[in-house]
Amino acid sequence: MLRHTVLFRWKPEVTDDQVDRVEEAVNQLPDAIGGVLAYRFQRDAGVSDGNHDACIVADFPDEQAFVAYRDHPVHLEVIREEIAPLLADRAAVQTYVDPA
Amino acid sequence: MLRHTVLFRWKPEVTDDQVDRVEEAVNQLPDAIGGVLAYRFQRDAGVSDGNHDACIVADFPDEQAFVAYRDHPVHLEVIREEIAPLLADRAAVQTYVDPA
Repeated sequence: MLRHTVLFRWKPEVTDDQVDRVEEAVNQLPDAIGGVLAYRFQRDAGVSDGNHDACIVADFPDEQAFVAYRDHPVHLEVIREEIAPLLADRAAVQTYVDPA
Repeated sequence: MLRHTVLFRWKPEVTDDQVDRVEEAVNQLPDAIGGVLAYRFQRDAGVSDGNHDACIVADFPDEQAFVAYRDHPVHLEVIREEIAPLLADRAAVQTYVDPA
């Protein structure tokens, strides 16, 4: 199983409402695109200074399903319209994990 | 349960042997520090360009256990001696998740 982990840091002026809109938009992606085993958008818990602000952890059965999601036009539109305008920094990895 | 997720990007000159030493050092932390429910160091799968190079995902029963790990002298020594010299960039979040 391939796990996609991406961390976002928002620009300082980004509001909670804007993050809510990102959350709503990305949470529609699994149904819109398919091939997603698990999908979670979460805000940072605020326990440590200097952290990024939010993350998505998404599980795919294999690399092919992840790449289909990554490159899907609906995903790219959400990135372009909802995420990119808010983004100060982004960090991502994909890792192979055993299914839960 | 509080999950700590940290992504590392290594400097371009960092070798596989150096990353192996980081892996060996961090994998000793759960036993050395305690209070860790799950701990995984992994390299990026190489599926996407621009990714960070590795990550640690560590689960703690609560915020107190995470903070004890985060601020533990043995952890800080591994960061200072093994990780920091290799590091080009770091991104982290902590998120509350349901136990598996």
